[in-house]
Amino acid sequence: MAHIDLGVDEEEYPGIAGLLHYRPETAKPLNELAEVLLRGPSSLSRGERELIAARVSGLNECSFCRDSHSAFAAAQLDGGADLVGLVRADPATAPIGGKLRALLGIADAVRRSGREVTAGLVEAARAAGATDLEIHDTVLIAAAFCMYNRYVDGLGTIRPDDPSAYEGVARNVVANGYLWS
Amino acid sequence: MAHIDLGVDEEEYPGIAGLLHYRPETAKPLNELAEVLLRGPSSLSRGERELIAARVSGLNECSFCRDSHSAFAAAQLDGGADLVGLVRADPATAPIGGKLRALLGIADAVRRSGREVTAGLVEAARAAGATDLEIHDTVLIAAAFCMYNRYVDGLGTIRPDDPSAYEGVARNVVANGYLWS
Repeated sequence: MAHIDLGVDEEEYPGIAGLLHYRPETAKPLNELAEVLLRGPSSLSRGERELIAARVSGLNECSFCRDSHSAFAAAQLDGGADLVGLVRADPATAPIGGKLRALLGIADAVRRSGREVTAGLVEAARAAGATDLEIHDTVLIAAAFCMYNRYVDGLGTIRPDDPSAYEGVARNVVANGYLWS
Repeated sequence: MAHIDLGVDEEEYPGIAGLLHYRPETAKPLNELAEVLLRGPSSLSRGERELIAARVSGLNECSFCRDSHSAFAAAQLDGGADLVGLVRADPATAPIGGKLRALLGIADAVRRSGREVTAGLVEAARAAGATDLEIHDTVLIAAAFCMYNRYVDGLGTIRPDDPSAYEGVARNVVANGYLWS
């Protein structure tokens, strides 16, 4: 049970879904931010961006966001769930390109504190081919999931017991995005 | 100097201002979220909500956000900068009401991790008179500043050298809000 009465059946609206239903005024910008960052025009693929979200959510131990965005990443990456698992465990050894590995290093730093992003991490990403916009968006995706994770867990929302629930949501997010809730 | 080229004079657009200018697609939901949470209709005053933002930003050691939102809080609270300083230092001993003190306790927990918000903290806030919506908004304000702080510092933006700069911005925010950038 969430810490507050969300006015919905929480089994039907787990995690952030019940919160978005409870407060439509804040749901609007929260959904728009996710849509722009994770699905809007970008030289990073949607799967790569969901991978950053899944990695940060895993480190923040937010199981609802971790499992949701892992499913969204898996559905949009050639390597599927296996690749997501390897990146979640350790980007340094996962079979990904150098640019994505460097961007994940920046995301990990942001998660700890914005002040942990060093000029060296940024230079390494640039040397691996990252653009300024890719660096910007990586920082903001990691920062945004430090918000979403705290929002979902801070209000004590429930997570689905059935892991296949995330696959159903993934099909909907891949098809329709985040403005459809 | 920021880690990426923001395309503006950073002295003129310090902190988040340069980032909002650099990426208008993400600026739109980021500004809207701040406007709803910190200035929209609420039974918490604008000053009280800015105080939560200032407290969280101070604990996250994000000097730009801390000094900005401290100025915005001071401009909208009877106690002014003295009260803001006392709350930033220790809500337990600051001369504020029990409800705001309990909400600040929730905000401090959210800042550490969403999982640190206990049923006991929520019950204490409710016993002090907090509504479900006030608890919701407190959690989301604290979570959102865990994002804004990481965004501002993760991209290495500069902060104004002149402390009076924040007072000028405060006059503008108090008069015009966050949708005017």
